[in-house]
Amino acid sequence: MLAISKRGEQMPPSPIRKLVPFAEAAKKKGIKVFHLNIGQPDIETPPAILDAVRNTDIKVLEYSHSAGNESYRRKLVQYYKKVRIDVSYDQIMITTGGSEAIMFGFLTCLNPGDEVIVPEPFYANYNGFACAAGVTVVPITSTIETGFALPPIEDFEKVITAKTKAIIICSPNNPTGYLYSKEEMYKLKELCLKYNLYLFSDEAYREFCYDGDYVSALHVEGLEQHVVLMDTISKRYSACGARLGALVTKNKAVYDAAMKFAQARLSPPGLAQIMGEAAIDLPESYFEAPKAEYLSRRNLLVRRLNAMQGVVCPNPGGAFYAMAKLPIDDSDKFCQWLLESFSYKGQTLMLAPATGFYGTPGLGKQEVRLAYVLNLTALDQAMDCLEEALKVYPGRTEN
Amino acid sequence: MLAISKRGEQMPPSPIRKLVPFAEAAKKKGIKVFHLNIGQPDIETPPAILDAVRNTDIKVLEYSHSAGNESYRRKLVQYYKKVRIDVSYDQIMITTGGSEAIMFGFLTCLNPGDEVIVPEPFYANYNGFACAAGVTVVPITSTIETGFALPPIEDFEKVITAKTKAIIICSPNNPTGYLYSKEEMYKLKELCLKYNLYLFSDEAYREFCYDGDYVSALHVEGLEQHVVLMDTISKRYSACGARLGALVTKNKAVYDAAMKFAQARLSPPGLAQIMGEAAIDLPESYFEAPKAEYLSRRNLLVRRLNAMQGVVCPNPGGAFYAMAKLPIDDSDKFCQWLLESFSYKGQTLMLAPATGFYGTPGLGKQEVRLAYVLNLTALDQAMDCLEEALKVYPGRTEN
Repeated sequence: MLAISKRGEQMPPSPIRKLVPFAEAAKKKGIKVFHLNIGQPDIETPPAILDAVRNTDIKVLEYSHSAGNESYRRKLVQYYKKVRIDVSYDQIMITTGGSEAIMFGFLTCLNPGDEVIVPEPFYANYNGFACAAGVTVVPITSTIETGFALPPIEDFEKVITAKTKAIIICSPNNPTGYLYSKEEMYKLKELCLKYNLYLFSDEAYREFCYDGDYVSALHVEGLEQHVVLMDTISKRYSACGARLGALVTKNKAVYDAAMKFAQARLSPPGLAQIMGEAAIDLPESYFEAPKAEYLSRRNLLVRRLNAMQGVVCPNPGGAFYAMAKLPIDDSDKFCQWLLESFSYKGQTLMLAPATGFYGTPGLGKQEVRLAYVLNLTALDQAMDCLEEALKVYPGRTEN
Repeated sequence: MLAISKRGEQMPPSPIRKLVPFAEAAKKKGIKVFHLNIGQPDIETPPAILDAVRNTDIKVLEYSHSAGNESYRRKLVQYYKKVRIDVSYDQIMITTGGSEAIMFGFLTCLNPGDEVIVPEPFYANYNGFACAAGVTVVPITSTIETGFALPPIEDFEKVITAKTKAIIICSPNNPTGYLYSKEEMYKLKELCLKYNLYLFSDEAYREFCYDGDYVSALHVEGLEQHVVLMDTISKRYSACGARLGALVTKNKAVYDAAMKFAQARLSPPGLAQIMGEAAIDLPESYFEAPKAEYLSRRNLLVRRLNAMQGVVCPNPGGAFYAMAKLPIDDSDKFCQWLLESFSYKGQTLMLAPATGFYGTPGLGKQEVRLAYVLNLTALDQAMDCLEEALKVYPGRTEN
């Protein structure tokens, strides 16, 4: 018998997708399912950037430069300038989604067996890329009591070993929505300098900050050579399916080595680059409407959740996620029960159990992630469902 | 100082791109450079498939299914049926180019340290994916004297160790254009069954076979569970920049494990999938024109090359590449010299030194790869240049 590889066996399945069959079964029974489980925005992709593709007059869809079209990279310099990130076009490498930027960062900076520290709960796919690259993810716990603020630096230092080579952060955060402050970013700087660590900074959600200033890892003075910024247009322009991201670094050795991985796969998607380039010409005001919409939704969601008996939801400073603690025995069971055994007025909701976002076994059993990617009316109805569900769920606990 | 990873250091740079600065310098001097160095076809992308993107009415460019849109996969079943490959839609996984299909195959089937045998000369980027996956490429030499036919099976057996887990082939071949016969494919079958090996089959060029029948690895009866087919629309529809490929396998364990890598990177490019789906509706006659064009070019190229003193070029059965043996001391030096120190009527040509396609050091020093991706007139002029160049090249040898 042919065997698959060890990493193929160990590769974690998507923690969110395992509930999909239950959602499909619920829909077959005629129940409306509100999807708060995935970060797929409902906001329209800006028509102007789709029009750029519709109006293209290319005759041959050729390979682009492996680092992406130079014209696009030069325009991205302007975009980054607007968010106070000063980079040149040859410090930007266009990637196939933020996913590939993360993978290139891991492959370029880390050896098999090396460790990367990540504050948990964290974006579950970091586990997948780590498995593919033979790297170990070492979690440090942030807690709902602090609103998922940066864990104390001592907690990082406790787990640092000779194999620790990097820290990966995401701010504003998926799944918590937490936005790191300038003070927190400078604490990370001290740590990276002291222990000679890379700082991988996943900044997919920078456009959506509600209560504080966005601080990029590339805003942190004196940390430039340590930072590998992982970016994407997926959330910024509601264009997840484009698969267009970027790896940005001022560290030339990292850039040059990542470039070899980029050359092996030839080029990033061509049609998406036309969209990405057009996006730089969107008026500055473009982000106002989606940001205002997400803010209204956040406010509704957090208000409704905290009004429910036994529920705690810190106010997330950015992105479009909230983590809530519920009076339940087991979030995996609860999320499945919502789809399998519950409905209210013919409706139910799909949530992401927080267990999938923790690296430490046993954590997240009372927490769920909610993505506010539905309009206010739908979101309000979904909260009605959750409120009713918590009243009748057999595994309810008293918090 | 921060260090980059060992694989980042060991990752081979693109053997073709190192000549690019010399080509740019030649152009700056006003010399016209005929590019026979890369597999970027000049054939137009079918307007109908670009129109499918131009006419799209999507409002939100969402993530697709991680295995690709089901509608596209179901249509691909029809395409594969036309080339006598009988697969179901859930045996097809849409990837970001053929590149990602190769990477998923390596990650899913091979452990770090495992060996994959490849007949050389071979597509140089296999080295890059092997380096990223921690896998060792073991070359078996095929020779220009046999037209790059499959090396004797004994040569494979000589290098098989406990770590050998797979063979990777490409037919029609890049860089040689060789098309494996049914007999050769069945020899590979015996070998894979005897030693329990995967057969990775890169079939990027199947539409372009000139003198014999295309034989897919999935045509080989009794080998189904061993085959991982790596496919792409890049060459088929002259759509390299789309970055759309597929991994096809009837081995469910491989498919399911590869699916976890696919989920981690979320989805393949969305706009490209619209193109890919439209391509299935192209009339059967679509391939006639590009195939006839490539065939005329091949005939011209092979005729011109073999008419040159001291040059040998076997007649390639497929793809759009030819390998030629030249009366020269060193193909790397020669290709650089063509750009740096030579011109004829204000023109020169860029070729790919064959050294980059061999794994065995020292091989390919008298060989070059020519991609016939220029029209007949340009190709003829390029051959004029080559003929003159060989007369005056200081490193000419007598073959």
